[in-house]
Amino acid sequence: MEKKLKVGIIGTGRIGRVHTMSIMNQLPQVEIKAVTDIFLDSAKEWAAQTGIKTVYNDYKELLADPEIDAVLVCSSTDTHADIAIEAAKAGKHIFCEKPVDLTIEKVEAVIEAAKQAGVKLQIGFNRRFDHNFRKVKELIDNKTIGDLQILKITSRDPSPPPIEYVKVSGGIFMDMTIHDFDMSRFLTSSEAEEIYVSAACMVDPAIAEAGDVDTALITIKFKNGVICVIDNSRKAAYGYDQRVEAFGSKGKVEIANDYPSTAVWSTEEGVFSEKPLYFFLERYMDSFGEEMKQFVDALINDKETPVTGNDGLQPIKMGFAAKKSVQEGRPVKLSEIQ
Amino acid sequence: MEKKLKVGIIGTGRIGRVHTMSIMNQLPQVEIKAVTDIFLDSAKEWAAQTGIKTVYNDYKELLADPEIDAVLVCSSTDTHADIAIEAAKAGKHIFCEKPVDLTIEKVEAVIEAAKQAGVKLQIGFNRRFDHNFRKVKELIDNKTIGDLQILKITSRDPSPPPIEYVKVSGGIFMDMTIHDFDMSRFLTSSEAEEIYVSAACMVDPAIAEAGDVDTALITIKFKNGVICVIDNSRKAAYGYDQRVEAFGSKGKVEIANDYPSTAVWSTEEGVFSEKPLYFFLERYMDSFGEEMKQFVDALINDKETPVTGNDGLQPIKMGFAAKKSVQEGRPVKLSEIQ
Amino acid sequence: MEKKLKVGIIGTGRIGRVHTMSIMNQLPQVEIKAVTDIFLDSAKEWAAQTGIKTVYNDYKELLADPEIDAVLVCSSTDTHADIAIEAAKAGKHIFCEKPVDLTIEKVEAVIEAAKQAGVKLQIGFNRRFDHNFRKVKELIDNKTIGDLQILKITSRDPSPPPIEYVKVSGGIFMDMTIHDFDMSRFLTSSEAEEIYVSAACMVDPAIAEAGDVDTALITIKFKNGVICVIDNSRKAAYGYDQRVEAFGSKGKVEIANDYPSTAVWSTEEGVFSEKPLYFFLERYMDSFGEEMKQFVDALINDKETPVTGNDGLQPIKMGFAAKKSVQEGRPVKLSEIQ
Amino acid sequence: MEKKLKVGIIGTGRIGRVHTMSIMNQLPQVEIKAVTDIFLDSAKEWAAQTGIKTVYNDYKELLADPEIDAVLVCSSTDTHADIAIEAAKAGKHIFCEKPVDLTIEKVEAVIEAAKQAGVKLQIGFNRRFDHNFRKVKELIDNKTIGDLQILKITSRDPSPPPIEYVKVSGGIFMDMTIHDFDMSRFLTSSEAEEIYVSAACMVDPAIAEAGDVDTALITIKFKNGVICVIDNSRKAAYGYDQRVEAFGSKGKVEIANDYPSTAVWSTEEGVFSEKPLYFFLERYMDSFGEEMKQFVDALINDKETPVTGNDGLQPIKMGFAAKKSVQEGRPVKLSEIQ
Repeated sequence: MEKKLKVGIIGTGRIGRVHTMSIMNQLPQVEIKAVTDIFLDSAKEWAAQTGIKTVYNDYKELLADPEIDAVLVCSSTDTHADIAIEAAKAGKHIFCEKPVDLTIEKVEAVIEAAKQAGVKLQIGFNRRFDHNFRKVKELIDNKTIGDLQILKITSRDPSPPPIEYVKVSGGIFMDMTIHDFDMSRFLTSSEAEEIYVSAACMVDPAIAEAGDVDTALITIKFKNGVICVIDNSRKAAYGYDQRVEAFGSKGKVEIANDYPSTAVWSTEEGVFSEKPLYFFLERYMDSFGEEMKQFVDALINDKETPVTGNDGLQPIKMGFAAKKSVQEGRPVKLSEIQ
Repeated sequence: MEKKLKVGIIGTGRIGRVHTMSIMNQLPQVEIKAVTDIFLDSAKEWAAQTGIKTVYNDYKELLADPEIDAVLVCSSTDTHADIAIEAAKAGKHIFCEKPVDLTIEKVEAVIEAAKQAGVKLQIGFNRRFDHNFRKVKELIDNKTIGDLQILKITSRDPSPPPIEYVKVSGGIFMDMTIHDFDMSRFLTSSEAEEIYVSAACMVDPAIAEAGDVDTALITIKFKNGVICVIDNSRKAAYGYDQRVEAFGSKGKVEIANDYPSTAVWSTEEGVFSEKPLYFFLERYMDSFGEEMKQFVDALINDKETPVTGNDGLQPIKMGFAAKKSVQEGRPVKLSEIQ
Repeated sequence: MEKKLKVGIIGTGRIGRVHTMSIMNQLPQVEIKAVTDIFLDSAKEWAAQTGIKTVYNDYKELLADPEIDAVLVCSSTDTHADIAIEAAKAGKHIFCEKPVDLTIEKVEAVIEAAKQAGVKLQIGFNRRFDHNFRKVKELIDNKTIGDLQILKITSRDPSPPPIEYVKVSGGIFMDMTIHDFDMSRFLTSSEAEEIYVSAACMVDPAIAEAGDVDTALITIKFKNGVICVIDNSRKAAYGYDQRVEAFGSKGKVEIANDYPSTAVWSTEEGVFSEKPLYFFLERYMDSFGEEMKQFVDALINDKETPVTGNDGLQPIKMGFAAKKSVQEGRPVKLSEIQ
Repeated sequence: MEKKLKVGIIGTGRIGRVHTMSIMNQLPQVEIKAVTDIFLDSAKEWAAQTGIKTVYNDYKELLADPEIDAVLVCSSTDTHADIAIEAAKAGKHIFCEKPVDLTIEKVEAVIEAAKQAGVKLQIGFNRRFDHNFRKVKELIDNKTIGDLQILKITSRDPSPPPIEYVKVSGGIFMDMTIHDFDMSRFLTSSEAEEIYVSAACMVDPAIAEAGDVDTALITIKFKNGVICVIDNSRKAAYGYDQRVEAFGSKGKVEIANDYPSTAVWSTEEGVFSEKPLYFFLERYMDSFGEEMKQFVDALINDKETPVTGNDGLQPIKMGFAAKKSVQEGRPVKLSEIQ
């Protein structure tokens, strides 16, 4: 057997464990050489169960391990950029969870560090790899629906995060819409020119007190002329709502949610079916596996990663434009955001 | 048998004939006493076929007929207001096709004339009576989806009207979106406060040359806080696309298009079904019947009409706000429109 | 205007009135010259409302009217055959409601009478003209699904008829399945060779006491090799259930029920939609119009009627075979039925 | 960590590997102690990749390993029974792929051997654990649809197996319908009383030459009164078709197929979506994981297995009854099958 690719995982919380399972289940050519977490005991217990042999006390030790080819940055958001920069300097390829950082400067610094070090950088915008969104992308790109004209993204969470989290999240546009901003760039293959937001706090007044909104309608003009609208809510009573409709000169494509079963039952009371999959991990499980597959493929076959550093940067800029639009009640050009 | 309600129909084009059939098929308590049309020969031929006995040369003769209780104004848009005002003065109840007029002044004059004369006035926003939209209204009003927060209206025509028509139509917002403006008011039970439009000419450059757009994304803030988005295209390759999604604190409701059949077929090439009903008359046939039923009910039982003069006025104002938003590239308050 | 086709309607109950409306609404070339009903007062009142001028006391008077070209036999089932035979002798074309009769002899007598008189005969199997079933027929006939192999018909009523009716109905196979027998012949374009039934009384013991079953699974081998299964129930709690699935060498086609609206709503409790259209008249309204159109077309243009006398006969034979199969617990060949 | 359950896998073909992955991915409390396969080289290579340390030359060696608690019998069908009996004698719990054997005697011998040895026995009817079928079962068992009356199972393969396989498969009823027989028992919670089959060879004449049919409609009367119909085809042009409809006194439940995505696209040519998942492993992947989970749960917590030896036996009997029905052209009682 040829030499395996060796990776280290920094942060063994929920998403770090998901990536671990993706690698173990489907990427026999990859070995998870070591993990690290600030909650050391929990990390050790989990590593023992999964057969991972090395658990470092500090991510710096992991970065110092010369056998490790690549790292997955799965720590808390505020640490992403610093760790990624250090990883680049240590010559490790980097898979970094989103958002890379809440400031433009730091995201640019990560991109620059990776460039200087000549290491690959992939950002964890997993939805691009989802079976439904991928099919939409395919039908847009192969011109089945002609030239894209209108893009509508529905993205609603089943329930808002804790208020303490809302306060440090950078706000709905950085924390939640950021995925939709990425999706809009992915599907239009273009960059945003201007953003207008109509938003309000309708779900929980505590969110307003924390200086944020929880309901938003975001209109984006793209450079290639496509008009896009995203609608967000922090709380959809029926569960996680993740859909897209793309309309073009020759037709449209829509995707529905995924459901636990296809069962439809009819009684004297009406016709019924199940609610959409509620939990994002369950909903997007296949996408996490696929993004890891493509990250490893980029490393082994020396390709560009499918989600680049710039793909991490642009949605942050869009988030700032969205915020500004809410504050000033007017459309904001991306060129206003530095 | 008790005395029949006697109506006169002014204009025997497509829509005048639809209303005639609605009356003949389902309203035995109504007699179509007379019709009038500027194309007299065609009107006479058609009247003979349908058993309508009187065809006047001039609508003024029809208005002078003392036996006639109510008129249906189905002539060309530019004549609606003048005829309606005269009809009011002649003491006839009025069913007036939409738009009443392309100016705020004239619509207000019609409303005033009806008020002065004490006659009933109903505007022909038929979609309110459609089986699908009615169900959405019901589920909003009975709070099945809680408090309405986001309203999304998709309204796309199968193909643009002739350029000559575009030039006199008042533009897409007066001609096409006007139905959606009405629907947004109907479903939110509120009035628009501010409108922002992102629009372009994507379908046919001739439309741009005529000074109009053919693709638009319209964001509306309503006074009760609901955020609404309408997306319009003059050309949906797959046919007439008429849908709504209403999202509220307790859930959502969506409607799909209507189709010629429910057949779904699966072959080696994929899974197929029919395109949506293409023609607005076919798609909305039941709604025309229902609006006529309710007009007659309002007359016979002396109720308020279900679509009032003000319901004819507000969408015109929204249309002006939308136009202004496109021209000035900013959100426009309805209070700016006089 | 050319001379109108003049028809007489024998029986002004529910179905007679439906045909009247179909003619009045869409067949200006047809005049309803006279009607007759054993309930004379009710017939007269209704005729006055609809503008029909002549109401005869007796159908024999109607048949004696030399101006009448064709009759619609819409009286009670036990009178169909005798009236149709008399009508043939009087030289009238015949549209006869189904079933023509509950005996093979009488149906054959009607066919023979029409043949002798040289008049056209159409049987009222309206479902052939329904938008959904027609589409299935089209996709079978144009070989979109290749050669038909398996045909599955689901046909369930919303609730059983009164027990008094069950007793005289000829049983479920004559009264309810007869439509499905016709559909199976229509879609396969073939004749039944053998029928096997698995049936029981599950809905109401009173039906068993009346000597009938209320739930049945009917397997039919057709002469062209197609295998067909029909499932019937007298009571579907959720309403009228009328579907077909056709499976062939190159694919399948399925039809769903029709619904009052396309609304789907989602709440914390699940995803909901409306029950199928409950009432057969509402569900099949378009088919009644279409069958009348084609009857008139056959008369005016001297074509063969789309549902012939033999189409009225064969389902009766299939009904007898089905009964025999239940009684003897074995597959029964159609050749056993005389 | 507590002591792991140790299993041995006999047969490392497609299904053996699927079970291995299910165990490795989700059952950390289970260790795959050893595997064995008659194709030793291939087995060794695969074991090395997956980290399985022991590969025996002969399943007898594996059975002799005292550390092994349970075996998965994943070898070719003709060896299932003998191996299972030996495994029982060796005191190993048994998970045995379906069909256990093509003779009633041998299946009974396996059941008896397990009973004598006091080991647990589970049969690999994986579809019971599928998300869609499980939901149907739940809605039947909790009486959402009232008392079950009619059960319709659609089960069509995307393409027939090689003729050489058809010849040794025991025929369509033993090889393909056996899953549907199991499903019918599972969903009705009852035993078949009588079976009638209408079948033919429509897909490939070579199948007829091999003495088999490829298209069948199977009617089953169950002891609790439920009437069931299964329709089978060896070739559905559009892919794998696996659906169920259950109809009861209070309603019905239907399941649709699973699809690669929920995308629906509409163009001038019509409305399109993807074909159902084609490959049984892809379609039923979750069910294989779930059956293994429940097998392990039964072992660890000393419960009855969810698919017993009798569940392996009854479908074989039903298969013989179905064959006899085809041969004799009549309904066959299960009591006729010994």
